Amino acid sequence: METKEIYLESLITGTPQEGRELAIKLARKSIAAIQPDSETRKKLRSDYAEDTAQLIASSQVIATEFQTIAMANNFWK
Amino acid sequence: METKEIYLESLITGTPQEGRELAIKLARKSIAAIQPDSETRKKLRSDYAEDTAQLIASSQVIATEFQTIAMANNFWK
Amino acid sequence: METKEIYLESLITGTPQEGRELAIKLARKSIAAIQPDSETRKKLRSDYAEDTAQLIASSQVIATEFQTIAMANNFWK
Amino acid sequence: METKEIYLESLITGTPQEGRELAIKLARKSIAAIQPDSETRKKLRSDYAEDTAQLIASSQVIATEFQTIAMANNFWK
Amino acid sequence: METKEIYLESLITGTPQEGRELAIKLARKSIAAIQPDSETRKKLRSDYAEDTAQLIASSQVIATEFQTIAMANNFWK
Amino acid sequence: METKEIYLESLITGTPQEGRELAIKLARKSIAAIQPDSETRKKLRSDYAEDTAQLIASSQVIATEFQTIAMANNFWK
Repeated sequence: METKEIYLESLITGTPQEGRELAIKLARKSIAAIQPDSETRKKLRSDYAEDTAQLIASSQVIATEFQTIAMANNFWK
Repeated sequence: METKEIYLESLITGTPQEGRELAIKLARKSIAAIQPDSETRKKLRSDYAEDTAQLIASSQVIATEFQTIAMANNFWK
Repeated sequence: METKEIYLESLITGTPQEGRELAIKLARKSIAAIQPDSETRKKLRSDYAEDTAQLIASSQVIATEFQTIAMANNFWK
Repeated sequence: METKEIYLESLITGTPQEGRELAIKLARKSIAAIQPDSETRKKLRSDYAEDTAQLIASSQVIATEFQTIAMANNFWK
Repeated sequence: METKEIYLESLITGTPQEGRELAIKLARKSIAAIQPDSETRKKLRSDYAEDTAQLIASSQVIATEFQTIAMANNFWK
Repeated sequence: METKEIYLESLITGTPQEGRELAIKLARKSIAAIQPDSETRKKLRSDYAEDTAQLIASSQVIATEFQTIAMANNFWK
């Protein structure tokens, strides 16, 4: 079920802001790896975009992915 | 759905207190990235601000974001 | 909604025990940042202090905050 | 109940993308270690692939496994 | 509500096994800090000791506390 | 309630695969520390082995324990 698309060339980003965007992308790609049907994902999207518990859980995933990316970039120092 | 607004210029803050405030900001921006409609977010806000389980989950996100920020600042030592 | 009170001057503490106390304080301040009304927080308090799932979730937040504080103090070695 | 199959020879991968794929594999192997019956796992699969809360929880596991793999690979720098 | 009892003198332990025991102790002390009434805690105990979701959540807290302790002890190498 | 059995002599393992097995063991020993009655644990086991949300939560614990073990082994590099 691994998607063959290459969506992660590097963890290095030019700015912290781009690091956030990469974190969000990685979180989404994990969902897509487990639920590869894009139609199903689209249908499910409204389920969590209006459910605060799931919005918070999603932001936890982003926080974890971002920590990895920030370490990779030596925190853009 | 990435927001074009630049909300994270740097992980470096002058004080630990400012690091906490940045952690809270990052947590909120993640929510906004997934649910970009600010009216919907406003409506949803009361859902979690009075639900202790969601308040605790939110504080977990803040703790994770803060850990990253604290590392970036070498713990303000 | 950021509270203007300065509640975090430093991550450095004299002892590991004080590090635990700071971790608990940070967890509480996150809740207060999201739900700034202290009357509401007081009302909500009984909701989670007798709900084991929420007590466990709170202790997860404390564990994460403490990890950051312990790193900041080089584990009090 | 430990599975005797060797599924993890090394944490080192050639690319970040392969690191993501390994993270997904490790997450799946954990499930298999706890629920070794593959027929049961197949039956259960539809339970979580269409449940956004569980998709998000799964992506949290992948984020944690990936952080370990990324550290092992010195972030592919 | 901070308990005045000193329950954490040091993160350093003689063995990894003692590190696990300290992790479990820290997890319990967090619960006690939030719910200081020992009678209530005793009553609540059966709620989670037979609820697998809560047992798993508790073991997540222990894993996080243990990671901190293991780092403090340089992994007992 | 600490079990007197020594189940963790060392975090060092010969291979990454053995590291996974140790992570699974540690996760299980945490459950046993909180619910020491093995009959109860056996009864509870079917509760989570067929509940995907709990399988995912268990794999999160394994991921966290494994991160600690991988760090202890310098990622078996």
